[in-house]
Amino acid sequence: MRLRRKPWANDWIQQHPELVISDASQVAQGWRELFGNDNPVHVELGTGKGKFIDEMSRAYPDINFIGMEKYESVLVTGLQRILHDRRENVRFIHGDVLNLFDFFGEKEVDRLFINFTDPWPKNRHEKRRLTYKTFLSLYEKVLKNEQDIHMKTDNQVLFEYSLESMSRYGMILKNISLDLHNSGMEHNIMTEYERKFYQKGQPIYRLEAFFPNDKKEE
Amino acid sequence: MRLRRKPWANDWIQQHPELVISDASQVAQGWRELFGNDNPVHVELGTGKGKFIDEMSRAYPDINFIGMEKYESVLVTGLQRILHDRRENVRFIHGDVLNLFDFFGEKEVDRLFINFTDPWPKNRHEKRRLTYKTFLSLYEKVLKNEQDIHMKTDNQVLFEYSLESMSRYGMILKNISLDLHNSGMEHNIMTEYERKFYQKGQPIYRLEAFFPNDKKEE
Repeated sequence: MRLRRKPWANDWIQQHPELVISDASQVAQGWRELFGNDNPVHVELGTGKGKFIDEMSRAYPDINFIGMEKYESVLVTGLQRILHDRRENVRFIHGDVLNLFDFFGEKEVDRLFINFTDPWPKNRHEKRRLTYKTFLSLYEKVLKNEQDIHMKTDNQVLFEYSLESMSRYGMILKNISLDLHNSGMEHNIMTEYERKFYQKGQPIYRLEAFFPNDKKEE
Repeated sequence: MRLRRKPWANDWIQQHPELVISDASQVAQGWRELFGNDNPVHVELGTGKGKFIDEMSRAYPDINFIGMEKYESVLVTGLQRILHDRRENVRFIHGDVLNLFDFFGEKEVDRLFINFTDPWPKNRHEKRRLTYKTFLSLYEKVLKNEQDIHMKTDNQVLFEYSLESMSRYGMILKNISLDLHNSGMEHNIMTEYERKFYQKGQPIYRLEAFFPNDKKEE
């Protein structure tokens, strides 16, 4: 992601602790307590400028959406969207996915979204890809039993890698599309990157995956 | 596959029982007995005109190759190739993959190839696809522990289906390529279909998959 420096972003974020969680102690009581209801909790990892979370939270008011993002200069755009049109079912986490388990308890999450994450194409950066096994083990902890990860990317090599990494880990893959926008899929909400690649005519890859209950312990 | 009727094909096949096995009783003693050695046994399901088996068996003389094909009008071309240039490490089976377990014993096969198989695109024909679960259960029986299936296809929907079907069955996927001929893969031997699609610039999809030892019994 290309980042423009926004010196004011951090101030904005700090002025809205009710919308942007920066410290895990703020959710020590759990997200259901914070949202004040028992609705499902869907989390987007690397939410960027928040377009996806913004549109999803309008389309599905009975689901609680949380966008996690480490770069404040993009996260602040997501915050602005929500400030512009307030609603109760959105929050952000200003933090690194590496620290996911600080912000969520075991089996607290109903769905994870990984949209257009950095492919980290060099082999020596494999461990940074959000579908590397150490990340998968974090997702396994926070996801409810047999609930899904939904992933979209324009990057062929990252997609191939992710299919293999998830399969090797013992996850079950389903609803795979190698060309999402020509697959007849309905109700797809595009991210900012997705719209850009779609307009260029590039295929978008998509998968769903879950950790089966009977998976052997590693 | 477009089939030209060749009334003479069946005669040719029947005249070469040493090369084309039509009756499972011919291999009741096992393929190692038939080949007269302990070399690995690699089987191509739906071998068509036999170009792949022909070139593989030249490239790897220490592997025994068996091409299985139900249509005699294409199988006869494979037979002609081998008659033209005799070698000891090739045989054909004139038979349907449905009957795979008649021709092979448990754990007798070291590798299975599924190349450019009929995609059977209609949902009601799902059970005919060579990656449908009933076929996978046949492959699991005849393949040695943790040995691989190698699959190639030009058909996007069949490939998506196969990834999902194999994953759902409990197989582990690896070495996935969504564009084989631009992936830097070495030592790829093209089938007849593959050459045709490659020349048109269409992507070729490829995967490897195996049944893990710790897979739970269905």
